[in-house]
Amino acid sequence: MKLYEIAAFLGCKEIEGSIEISGLNTLREAVEGQISFLSDSKYEKELSETRASAVILPLSKSHLLPEGVVALESDEPYMSIALLSKYFAKPIRSSEIPPIIGEESVVYPSAHIENGARVGAHCTIMSGVYIGAETVIGDNVILYPNVTIYRDCIIGDRVMIHAGTVIGSDGFGYAHTKMGEHIKLYQNGNVVIEDDVEIGANTTVDCAVFGSTIIKQGSKIDNLVQIGHNCVVGEHSILVSQSGLAGSTTLGRNVVMGGQSATAGHLSIAPFTTLAARSGVTKSITNKGVYSGFPLMEHKLWLKMQAKLAKIVEH
Amino acid sequence: MKLYEIAAFLGCKEIEGSIEISGLNTLREAVEGQISFLSDSKYEKELSETRASAVILPLSKSHLLPEGVVALESDEPYMSIALLSKYFAKPIRSSEIPPIIGEESVVYPSAHIENGARVGAHCTIMSGVYIGAETVIGDNVILYPNVTIYRDCIIGDRVMIHAGTVIGSDGFGYAHTKMGEHIKLYQNGNVVIEDDVEIGANTTVDCAVFGSTIIKQGSKIDNLVQIGHNCVVGEHSILVSQSGLAGSTTLGRNVVMGGQSATAGHLSIAPFTTLAARSGVTKSITNKGVYSGFPLMEHKLWLKMQAKLAKIVEH
Amino acid sequence: MKLYEIAAFLGCKEIEGSIEISGLNTLREAVEGQISFLSDSKYEKELSETRASAVILPLSKSHLLPEGVVALESDEPYMSIALLSKYFAKPIRSSEIPPIIGEESVVYPSAHIENGARVGAHCTIMSGVYIGAETVIGDNVILYPNVTIYRDCIIGDRVMIHAGTVIGSDGFGYAHTKMGEHIKLYQNGNVVIEDDVEIGANTTVDCAVFGSTIIKQGSKIDNLVQIGHNCVVGEHSILVSQSGLAGSTTLGRNVVMGGQSATAGHLSIAPFTTLAARSGVTKSITNKGVYSGFPLMEHKLWLKMQAKLAKIVEH
Repeated sequence: MKLYEIAAFLGCKEIEGSIEISGLNTLREAVEGQISFLSDSKYEKELSETRASAVILPLSKSHLLPEGVVALESDEPYMSIALLSKYFAKPIRSSEIPPIIGEESVVYPSAHIENGARVGAHCTIMSGVYIGAETVIGDNVILYPNVTIYRDCIIGDRVMIHAGTVIGSDGFGYAHTKMGEHIKLYQNGNVVIEDDVEIGANTTVDCAVFGSTIIKQGSKIDNLVQIGHNCVVGEHSILVSQSGLAGSTTLGRNVVMGGQSATAGHLSIAPFTTLAARSGVTKSITNKGVYSGFPLMEHKLWLKMQAKLAKIVEH
Repeated sequence: MKLYEIAAFLGCKEIEGSIEISGLNTLREAVEGQISFLSDSKYEKELSETRASAVILPLSKSHLLPEGVVALESDEPYMSIALLSKYFAKPIRSSEIPPIIGEESVVYPSAHIENGARVGAHCTIMSGVYIGAETVIGDNVILYPNVTIYRDCIIGDRVMIHAGTVIGSDGFGYAHTKMGEHIKLYQNGNVVIEDDVEIGANTTVDCAVFGSTIIKQGSKIDNLVQIGHNCVVGEHSILVSQSGLAGSTTLGRNVVMGGQSATAGHLSIAPFTTLAARSGVTKSITNKGVYSGFPLMEHKLWLKMQAKLAKIVEH
Repeated sequence: MKLYEIAAFLGCKEIEGSIEISGLNTLREAVEGQISFLSDSKYEKELSETRASAVILPLSKSHLLPEGVVALESDEPYMSIALLSKYFAKPIRSSEIPPIIGEESVVYPSAHIENGARVGAHCTIMSGVYIGAETVIGDNVILYPNVTIYRDCIIGDRVMIHAGTVIGSDGFGYAHTKMGEHIKLYQNGNVVIEDDVEIGANTTVDCAVFGSTIIKQGSKIDNLVQIGHNCVVGEHSILVSQSGLAGSTTLGRNVVMGGQSATAGHLSIAPFTTLAARSGVTKSITNKGVYSGFPLMEHKLWLKMQAKLAKIVEH
């Protein structure tokens, strides 16, 4: 799709621009030939350094762009990028190269590995597993039955994923029209799972909108856990069953999340933080400690509150 | 099964009635040849207008039936209908007609589509997908790997269902004996998913006991969400990850349910209502607004309560 | 692996011991040829009666062992048993005997049944189902599509398991190094599901570390429920959607757990206890009753507390 076609599609003012656009990306990550967007003023400072060929943004901000970067003016940049994203969505199948399977790996007959995928050595890919196009699996990996891994993901060595877990499903991202309809932002990113991670059964890890959702080395994730798009789970973290991370939240290393605990999106949790079972985090945590409750507080304070509440009821 | 056989099976008094009974249904929906039941007095007013051929109900209510409708007297009508339901449960396979696949649809080799099912045009039915008997899938639908859709469901156009999600599993309905055993009420209904709905990974949508569980047009449902039997999700609603709807609850259009929020069963939630993350709804909501907490309250009130609680602890 | 090799592997003092060790087990369950361990002093009293051939334990406790039982001294017995467990993990495939399928059972073509497994009569094993090695399935069982049952499990008669559910996935058990790494304790146990149990869709039931996770006769489990390793669910219990049991918790018969309720691990819940939706149990319950809230309290008290809190906010 050429730049001037995109401008026309978005209803921007007519522009010259015969450059072929290859994809969409964030201001920070975009490279030449890509389009980016500004939908949240906190990223405004990234405008001056973007290497995108064009940026969708409000008229009032277009003077902040570096010379040579085309402004695609829009009152609703997030809606514009969502409408556009469909045309840059990656197809399910995109390669003619048959999958490569490493030595001494066992692939069950009903597993399905797309063209362009690679599986390392000494892996066990069990029945009903799906591995998407261009996904790369390390060595000594076990994928239990009916695991699904979408396209473009990267799975490290000695990773173990239990039955029914889904890696790389689309993040939950939509732009909303004034009529209350939701326009899908097609997800371009992937999931990266580093070495020695174990993931339980029927857990879900969404792919990133752009870039990667990352589960770092040695982390252990239980059953029925939700990890939203663009999250980063630090090294050696532990997420107990039915916990959930909303999109774009980052856990430091050795964070422990108890059962049914959860965080809102776009937060940062300090390394070595422990979140008790059922805790709900709505603000970033900068000091490690043990936290409980919803709203979240220090665990000691939570215990004190519960004691006071018990007294209130007695009277 | 003939009506007099059913009466004998249920231990009702001996009746004449050589009519063949074709199924079970609610008082409102039953047609000639079907049996209905009265287990909750709030439906008593529907007795006089039922078109069922027979109704299971307490002796004291049988005078409320229209002439010509046979009373099957039972002290425990819900138990009676549960015991009976097994004999009217639909078989997993019921058709000799091979599935019909629309033009330019791709069906992966390990997908299984039962006889009597139909898939529209331009669909992608990925590996490990199961589509039950008589289920009808619209056009431009993507079913990601290992999605299961039970029999009799109806899926609209441009629906996208992510990996591992289950549509049409049996609702959680049992009659309880005095000995504490649970007698399954076999589920006769289906799930209807309207156009432009997207459903995340490893979510579950139960079929209706009778009639339909309905996800209306344009709604977006995240990962690991539970939708109970006979729920109706209004147009353009948004259900964030790990939220849950108990049976027979109706959401108006554009309802937003935050992560890990939930409702009890048999409720009605006003259009344009927002339920914050973790909120728990136990009563119907008639005025739209933003609600939080468990028990549920207006979000503003919830914030005030949290501030007061914080003060209590300080002292 | 011979006993002296194990001692060398664990860095224990050199011992004689040419006996071949066949496996690991608890103090109570271990038999001759097995190794056990003491990592929690509450099991100290079981040392004197263990039939294990050797026990990993701190130096200070080794005098409590019966004569003839070898002490493998370790400052961190749980870490030692975790490190050792990898060498005794059962392989995914272990039998040359083709699976045995009972009469009039239907197995869909894409189901995968491992060697050494047995399926009873009149069963329906649908597409994408996986049945592990040595697992035994009773009569009249329905396994809906994409159900996964790991090795060594035992499934009773008339059991119904809905789509996507996982039985026997590894429990979430690790020993933690001083550097914050997690060493997997490979799970040796299984899951036993007794007669007449129904389990919903996308639920997870972990296998036991040693011994069995047990779902007793007639229990009904909804969708998206988590049952941890070594739990026992009593007869005719009901677990509503999105509820969770942490490891080693025992429910008495006819316990009801509401939606999104949960328990901590190693608890015991009295028979006929009802846990309201969202309740969170952190201590054992010895008196049956109806309980709510988190922290848990009698439901009546919880209602009173909510009323008082509402008044506080009014002022």
